[in-house]
Amino acid sequence: MKPILYSYFRSSSSYRVRIALSLKKIDYEYRAVHLIKDGGEQLKPEFKTLNPMGQVPYLIHDQVQISQSMAILLYLESAFPNHPLFPKDNRKFAKLIELCEIINSGIQPVQNLGVLKKLEEDLGATAAQKKLWAKTIIETGLEGLEKAVGNYAGRYAFGDKVSALDCFLVPQLFNARRFEVDTKHFPNLYRADENARALPAFASASPEAQPDFKA
Amino acid sequence: MKPILYSYFRSSSSYRVRIALSLKKIDYEYRAVHLIKDGGEQLKPEFKTLNPMGQVPYLIHDQVQISQSMAILLYLESAFPNHPLFPKDNRKFAKLIELCEIINSGIQPVQNLGVLKKLEEDLGATAAQKKLWAKTIIETGLEGLEKAVGNYAGRYAFGDKVSALDCFLVPQLFNARRFEVDTKHFPNLYRADENARALPAFASASPEAQPDFKA
Repeated sequence: MKPILYSYFRSSSSYRVRIALSLKKIDYEYRAVHLIKDGGEQLKPEFKTLNPMGQVPYLIHDQVQISQSMAILLYLESAFPNHPLFPKDNRKFAKLIELCEIINSGIQPVQNLGVLKKLEEDLGATAAQKKLWAKTIIETGLEGLEKAVGNYAGRYAFGDKVSALDCFLVPQLFNARRFEVDTKHFPNLYRADENARALPAFASASPEAQPDFKA
Repeated sequence: MKPILYSYFRSSSSYRVRIALSLKKIDYEYRAVHLIKDGGEQLKPEFKTLNPMGQVPYLIHDQVQISQSMAILLYLESAFPNHPLFPKDNRKFAKLIELCEIINSGIQPVQNLGVLKKLEEDLGATAAQKKLWAKTIIETGLEGLEKAVGNYAGRYAFGDKVSALDCFLVPQLFNARRFEVDTKHFPNLYRADENARALPAFASASPEAQPDFKA
C-alpha cells in the first residue's frame, strides 16, 4: 500500500516529512489539509476523527496511523531503511535526536501559526508584535543550534551526508526567511541549508512544489 | 562512570529524565541549575559553554553530552536496556513516540516558564493572563492526547506496563495541576498518572524529593 500523507504546503512539520519521503524515494499520495481556509480544515470533524490533535502532518501506512514529524521520520526509517537518515551508533543517534529536537520542540512550536493566532486573540498582539515574536524566537533558537551543531556540521547539518537533521533544518530556515531572519548569521546552518536545497529531493518537497501551493 | 544530570526540581523536562533514571535504577549525580535565581543559572557562561541552548535537563555519560529529554530517554534506553521504556515493535515504537511528542513538542514548549516570561515582557501579559494562557494550552493539549491515547491506555498511559509515555505524562499533569486544570476530565490520563505516581520510582523522581526543592 502506498503511504498517504496529510499535509499543508506551508506547514514546516509537513515539509520535514515530505523531505524524508522524497529522500527515501517513497511514492505517496498527497492529501492537502488547508490550515487557514474556513477556520482551518484540520479542525473539522472529518480530520479530527483521524487525528484528535487536529494537526498535520499525518501519515497512514500499513496499519500505522501517526502524527508528529519525529515519530513519522523514525517510522519511515524502520519501514524504509534505504537512504538512512539516522546513524546506527547509539551515541551519534542520541546527538542527532537532540539537535532535531532543538527545532522540533524548542523553536518551531513557539513560533508556529497557532501560537501567533493565540497571541493576537488572547493578548491583542498586532501584526508587528506577532512578527517580532516569531523572529526573536527563531533567532535565539538558531543561535543556540548553530553552537550546538558546531563540529558535527559538515557539507550538511550533521556531517557530510544528508540526515534527519537536514529534514528539520531546511523547513526551519524557510520559516526564518519568512520572518526576515538573516540566516547568514549562522554559518554552519546556512551552508547546510544551501547544500541541501540544491538537491532534487529537497526541491520536490518544498512548499512551492506541492499541489496545494498558493503564492 | 556515574551519569551526571543537570536538573531543576520544578522543570518538567528534567522530571521526565529523573523518572527514566529512577525506573532503570541508574545511580547518578544530581547537579542543580536554578532557573529563576539571579536571572537564571542556565544562562550563565559556565552552563552555556556546556549547553548553548541554556536549558535543563542536560546529561553527561560516557562521552555523551546531550540536552533534550527525548534524546536523553532514547540514549538511556540504548545504554541501559534493563526495564525497557520503548517497545521493540517498530509500529508500536512509532505510536509511542507520537504520543510522547504530543507532550514534548505540542504542549509543554508553549506553556513553559520561558514563554510565560516572554508574554509578560513583550506583550505586557498580566499574571492572570499568563495563567489562563498556560491553562488553555494544557487543557486543549490534554483533550487531544486523551483521545489519541484512547485504546492504547491501560493501567498506565501505554498499556499495562510503565513506558516512556508515563515519563512524559506525569510531569505534564504536575504542570496541569499547578495551573489548576482539572485532570479528572481526562480519565485515561488521570488513571495512568495516579497509578504511576503510586510507584516508588516515580515518587523519588518528583520535584519534592529533589535536593534543590523549595516549597
